[in-house]
Amino acid sequence: MKNNLPIGIFDSGVGGLTVYRALHRRLPDERFLYLGDTARVPYGTKSLSTVERYGIENARFLSAQGIKMLVVACNTASALALPAIERAAGVPTVGVIESGARAAVEAAHAKIGVIATEATVRSGAYRRAIKKLAPQIKVIEQACPLFVSLAEEGYADSDAARLVAQDYLSGLRDEETETLVLGCTHYPVLRSVISEVVGEGVRLIDSGEAVATDVAAALAERGLQRAPAPQKGARPRQLCDDLDHFYVTDAAERFSRIAEMFLGRAPRRLEAVEVWGHDELNVRR
Amino acid sequence: MKNNLPIGIFDSGVGGLTVYRALHRRLPDERFLYLGDTARVPYGTKSLSTVERYGIENARFLSAQGIKMLVVACNTASALALPAIERAAGVPTVGVIESGARAAVEAAHAKIGVIATEATVRSGAYRRAIKKLAPQIKVIEQACPLFVSLAEEGYADSDAARLVAQDYLSGLRDEETETLVLGCTHYPVLRSVISEVVGEGVRLIDSGEAVATDVAAALAERGLQRAPAPQKGARPRQLCDDLDHFYVTDAAERFSRIAEMFLGRAPRRLEAVEVWGHDELNVRR
Repeated sequence: MKNNLPIGIFDSGVGGLTVYRALHRRLPDERFLYLGDTARVPYGTKSLSTVERYGIENARFLSAQGIKMLVVACNTASALALPAIERAAGVPTVGVIESGARAAVEAAHAKIGVIATEATVRSGAYRRAIKKLAPQIKVIEQACPLFVSLAEEGYADSDAARLVAQDYLSGLRDEETETLVLGCTHYPVLRSVISEVVGEGVRLIDSGEAVATDVAAALAERGLQRAPAPQKGARPRQLCDDLDHFYVTDAAERFSRIAEMFLGRAPRRLEAVEVWGHDELNVRR
Repeated sequence: MKNNLPIGIFDSGVGGLTVYRALHRRLPDERFLYLGDTARVPYGTKSLSTVERYGIENARFLSAQGIKMLVVACNTASALALPAIERAAGVPTVGVIESGARAAVEAAHAKIGVIATEATVRSGAYRRAIKKLAPQIKVIEQACPLFVSLAEEGYADSDAARLVAQDYLSGLRDEETETLVLGCTHYPVLRSVISEVVGEGVRLIDSGEAVATDVAAALAERGLQRAPAPQKGARPRQLCDDLDHFYVTDAAERFSRIAEMFLGRAPRRLEAVEVWGHDELNVRR
């Protein structure tokens, strides 16, 4: 019964769709509930207490829909508020920081670069997670706040993005890092510009792909996997099909448009909801 | 008694400080309460119902502090929700759209360009306001969503901003507009790049300066002006001095830093508050 429940995913907005895509690819039998907090995006420039409050409200909302596990796709919320979010969710909760840190440590020997939002960098969460696994590795962190809007506004592959990337990443290039963690769900959208600027020899770590591996392991460990579709010859799952449900806190149309740009397909089931309210849950249907 | 009350100003974030500066310069005897809704910035990519709700909550908060007039410095909130905001405020309320439109019509004969957020452009508010004053004038509108983050992240005078501006503004340049309304409080920060791209012959209209004129007139009309300081030789008012009070809904430190960049001085009185809640007002002190 419980195994049939979907996995919840939340992000501050559309960026977490890159995590949804990785989870969907890795776990094709699972169903997903995705919440994009588009009314309050971005999180990366906001304070710890605000990000924590938003994360708790999102977790409560998804939990009330019935989920067996929660994935915090947003790096900023994972970095600042994972324990509080897990308490609010009441189900096993996986953030993206530890997964990304482990994948980076597996790929690097001496130096790891991390690019992320202001709030994530300020929290030092990636540095701590990497140092815990490999204390000898040098960690170089850099905030790249403009990357989010460049990705959202369709400027991922522009000369403007290239100039901004050169500005943000010159220090990392000089440090000759071997591995660079894309520590914000939006950054994979700028992957080609980032790779061009830091050099093709630098391995880019996408936390979304790393977290999918960890979620698969956590499901297996708890015996929580959903059974594969019984009929042979059943149509394979597709991204954004009827089994996955998407919620946004604002502007469903904009979300749908950007999802189509990111995933090549718009969600079939998409609803606008309210997740805030001080004591109880308010859902607009 | 009422004349001594401050004038309330709200914006989605720091951009409205350009309006505060214009009001302060024009009305040196007045006191101001400024609210920056930094926990929910930006408004320009969000929907009408969300922007309206945020605007109403901001108006109620300022109204509860005691104000004699409200200035909606945010173009998006002015464009989408001015009547609802005025009802919530319960005091005379001035938005930036009509003031900007009038200043543009005074300066133009045939063609006016308007650059603004996605939501403001979609609302058509500037077009309507200009057409009401001068139906024969052609209005060309263009959304420039990346300008907000370029201004906030200190890239106002960069080559990246220049490239993005060339991309957004090439259509306006080809149309040979005489006058260009900077229809978002952040855009005056990019004034020199914008002027360079559209050509120095194009007159740029800053809605902040235009609204200061209208607020002065509205105060005079209602006899609501504050009396000048009684003592002769009293020190002149300064921006951000003790008489003006600033509130933010998040990250006071970041606000203070950006205010210093915009105004050359950080607010002396700055508090973090909560303005949301469904029925009553929640103020965190």
